[in-house]
Amino acid sequence: MSHEGDTQGTLFPSGAADPTPTSAGRKPKGGDAARGTGGGSAAERMARQQREISVSEFFTKNRHLLGFDSPRKALLTAVKEAVDNSLDACEEARIVPDLQVEIRAVQGRENTFTVIVEDNGPGIVPKQVPNVFGRLLYGSKFHRLRQSRGQQGIGIAAAGMYSQLTTGNPMRITSRIGRKALPYFFTVRMDTTRNRPEFTEKVVEWDKDHGTRVEIDLEGEYRRGQRSVEEFLKLVALANPHVRIAFKDPEGVATLFDRATTELPKETEEIKPHPHGVELGQLIKMLQDTEEKWVHLFLQRDFSRVGPKVAEEICAAAKINPRANPRVIVKEDADRLKKAIDQTRIMAPPTSCIAPIGEELMLKGLRKEVEADFYVATSRSPVVYRGRPFLVEVGIAFGRPGDTLLLTEEGKIVEQKKKVENQEALMGNADEPVRLIRYANRVPLMFQQSACAISKSVIATNWRNYGLQQPRGALPIGPMVLMVHIASVWVPFTSESKEAIAGYDEIFKEIRLGIQECARKLGTHIRKGRKLASEFKKRGFIEKYIPHIGQALKEILSLDDRQVGECVGRLTTVLEKSRKL
Amino acid sequence: MSHEGDTQGTLFPSGAADPTPTSAGRKPKGGDAARGTGGGSAAERMARQQREISVSEFFTKNRHLLGFDSPRKALLTAVKEAVDNSLDACEEARIVPDLQVEIRAVQGRENTFTVIVEDNGPGIVPKQVPNVFGRLLYGSKFHRLRQSRGQQGIGIAAAGMYSQLTTGNPMRITSRIGRKALPYFFTVRMDTTRNRPEFTEKVVEWDKDHGTRVEIDLEGEYRRGQRSVEEFLKLVALANPHVRIAFKDPEGVATLFDRATTELPKETEEIKPHPHGVELGQLIKMLQDTEEKWVHLFLQRDFSRVGPKVAEEICAAAKINPRANPRVIVKEDADRLKKAIDQTRIMAPPTSCIAPIGEELMLKGLRKEVEADFYVATSRSPVVYRGRPFLVEVGIAFGRPGDTLLLTEEGKIVEQKKKVENQEALMGNADEPVRLIRYANRVPLMFQQSACAISKSVIATNWRNYGLQQPRGALPIGPMVLMVHIASVWVPFTSESKEAIAGYDEIFKEIRLGIQECARKLGTHIRKGRKLASEFKKRGFIEKYIPHIGQALKEILSLDDRQVGECVGRLTTVLEKSRKL
Repeated sequence: MSHEGDTQGTLFPSGAADPTPTSAGRKPKGGDAARGTGGGSAAERMARQQREISVSEFFTKNRHLLGFDSPRKALLTAVKEAVDNSLDACEEARIVPDLQVEIRAVQGRENTFTVIVEDNGPGIVPKQVPNVFGRLLYGSKFHRLRQSRGQQGIGIAAAGMYSQLTTGNPMRITSRIGRKALPYFFTVRMDTTRNRPEFTEKVVEWDKDHGTRVEIDLEGEYRRGQRSVEEFLKLVALANPHVRIAFKDPEGVATLFDRATTELPKETEEIKPHPHGVELGQLIKMLQDTEEKWVHLFLQRDFSRVGPKVAEEICAAAKINPRANPRVIVKEDADRLKKAIDQTRIMAPPTSCIAPIGEELMLKGLRKEVEADFYVATSRSPVVYRGRPFLVEVGIAFGRPGDTLLLTEEGKIVEQKKKVENQEALMGNADEPVRLIRYANRVPLMFQQSACAISKSVIATNWRNYGLQQPRGALPIGPMVLMVHIASVWVPFTSESKEAIAGYDEIFKEIRLGIQECARKLGTHIRKGRKLASEFKKRGFIEKYIPHIGQALKEILSLDDRQVGECVGRLTTVLEKSRKL
Repeated sequence: MSHEGDTQGTLFPSGAADPTPTSAGRKPKGGDAARGTGGGSAAERMARQQREISVSEFFTKNRHLLGFDSPRKALLTAVKEAVDNSLDACEEARIVPDLQVEIRAVQGRENTFTVIVEDNGPGIVPKQVPNVFGRLLYGSKFHRLRQSRGQQGIGIAAAGMYSQLTTGNPMRITSRIGRKALPYFFTVRMDTTRNRPEFTEKVVEWDKDHGTRVEIDLEGEYRRGQRSVEEFLKLVALANPHVRIAFKDPEGVATLFDRATTELPKETEEIKPHPHGVELGQLIKMLQDTEEKWVHLFLQRDFSRVGPKVAEEICAAAKINPRANPRVIVKEDADRLKKAIDQTRIMAPPTSCIAPIGEELMLKGLRKEVEADFYVATSRSPVVYRGRPFLVEVGIAFGRPGDTLLLTEEGKIVEQKKKVENQEALMGNADEPVRLIRYANRVPLMFQQSACAISKSVIATNWRNYGLQQPRGALPIGPMVLMVHIASVWVPFTSESKEAIAGYDEIFKEIRLGIQECARKLGTHIRKGRKLASEFKKRGFIEKYIPHIGQALKEILSLDDRQVGECVGRLTTVLEKSRKL
């Protein structure tokens, strides 16, 4: 390395580089020996405090990063993590999901609830249950490139950790992997110092052939309305028309979110990383870790979209022997290999790893959940950020039926037909901001709207172009539900709680394009409605005033009723014609 | 547990709980044996993919969580992490910090820089160097309750990880712990699969008695202006008047941020957790982990503010024998113990763990860095959130000198004396939003302003009450620098990159109170200025029109010049009197 020489002497001359101990300060004494560890220097005192921090300790202290910062949010987050896992498991096993979600108040303990989520999924093999539920950063979805709701191996174990912290109780899991297998019941705790599970297990009776049931006790707060568990499930249903969820709230009220289709989302395939998304450090690691013996095979088998010809081209450009051993490639060679990869044309990554909702099902979902005057949806083609394919889908439901005729020239609805009575209704009133619903890999994002790339893209769009009012730096105003979905093999979230999408340029751009595509159609609809409204207004004038003119003519010219009728008729025809109706 | 019985049978009756495999789906077959692992069921296929995710792999993929999402931000984040560590180490060793920060372009490689940060701190004992720099979640600050810049054990190792990822190069560290110790030079890499360091070490020559020098190569972008390294260092200097930083940019231009005092911040003390901030799960863990033999001793020695009397009171209320062994306390007892703790009056936690900047030094810093017309600062008393002491400090610098006289009734400055020429000036123009500078434990927060509890509190304040304009949901408008500092033993950040403070209620409240305290004084100043401006305006009228009146009287009444002078003089006196100047 070229910089080693620089470590001699100070960086560049500056005033006084000497240590300046204050009167109150203790001057470092230096070690007893050159590498002494028992000495009394500041460095040695500090060294004795240095130690490993377990990831569970870290997240216990930082639990707001996981979505457990308030009792209300904690309850919703626990439901969300369990539901996400159930849906992922069902889809991966190609089972149409049937979920039961229940929230029960724990007797004799204030603000404490049991969250129960039960699915008809494939179950979890017994020996993995303690790890899946009792360890942070453990899972099957992190290392693969394939769309799924979970991706971090944190969520459900975090819910258990929060449960343990606030109630002292373990999670309880029942699981069965098939009719011939025995159902097992587990209690799982987490040893947060080691980030390892502590558990009990036993065989139980269960009348399900396969599935998983999770029970979590936690300190929480149950409320209805916006950002409630019920709303979350409703939004899940909207973007997942193949899912049925039966929900029972703490008062025992049951709600069924039924499915609109039994067709599962397209089965996604795991892909290899795309060469253009790989950074130097990652390439070096892949060269060291590969099982291939030759560089050209490494390129072909450890990456997507690299065939023999492209591999050869890359090796030639990098001046590397295609039959060189990947494990002995030195850094300088890796550097050239990286440059050669970047300069070689390679086909875009396969998109079989992503499963969009699709325009048709988005419209179906919107029509089912939102009563509106106008619907439009778009599902864009997949593109790539950092070698990872993703795609954006946008849906709009606009105006309550009949509202269109009330639109003024300024795009404002002057008179609202009726106030929204149902507080769980997704669409707001005409003088309120549009209702933005954000999704990542079919999961509704319930919090941190303002920090999300989706919201930022919506705000950055000029909605006046499409006939809507929009205060500066804010969401547009109008009776509208705007649904934006981003599907990817790896969604970059702004925190582990997965509440908002980070603002990568490629993602911003795609969201903006998707919104514009829908908004243009909305704009046409609004303008048409406005023209119509203006027509009705003018026609209203004719209908209102012509009879009076008739009456006046009658008196001035002493016409009889027939003559008045004839005159009024002709006047109306002339006026209508002049408006070119 | 009372819920175990529920695991038999389904949750509650619903339509069809049977699995519904689609034609495309593969129906789970069940294991070959009850606990088979080699079988072909979906659960078994999925189990084979489940594995541990190392924390370094997690953060490599999620590096935007650590502040490394764009080349520009990455460069600043690396500087920030190294500077934070240096200042923490110096202060802990009671050494007045002298830092040298340099950014060099790497020859022959675009967008690649070497970040060098060298301090006069206590150094790091050689055997800890690889762990400190080559492992995430390793450090001395996480487990203690005491104010420091670093708290997670992530920052500097994350910078190294990003360096390795983008350039393939290791970090280079030179460190010496005292005159009698040998200076060591290390290269440190991270094995991200295991989150463990790989390193080389050797003894070198170094003319420093003690200190640490870190060199990091990384892909970055160097820019001046807002959110630049230079601005960051300037803001560090503002809140840390005891620090001297010499900075050299990639073009070799040197800037010295000199210190305003040699007095170090008050030495902070580590405290024990406060009983009122402890949750049930944590209490159970502390009972298990304690070295004390009796519950009453455990309460006294493992918590702050619990003396023999309070311990006895708690035990009595919990109906627990004070001499019971903490390790055999069952969950029901712990439950009662927790309730007893919550119901017992316990003194607020000691605040020796926090070191505020103080009003005087805040004003000194503001005066040094911002030329203004009016300064005010406040340092509030410490309060507690979740058992953790914290305090809020607010400083305001308002108006460029002379501006006051231009204020109109609406609080708008009609005419700006001159445009800001120096783009690094902290204060904006009169028609721009105020400049908000956020600090956490003396570290400037450079990104994610909108997601931060500080910004939210500023926006939620009604600045019209204090004479400033304020658009709805936005920062107030005016030529003003607003500095808000939160100091705590544990600052809850919204992500690992420590860019914004999470919105806990207690924190919101304190920030609001701090702002109001300063803003009231600002309001008085602005009103005074406005009154003055209005006076000047009226006096201007008199001076302007009276001579004309005199001239008119002269012509009408044929007065001579002396009479005119006399008349004008008397008129002016009368008018001035009637204004009660």
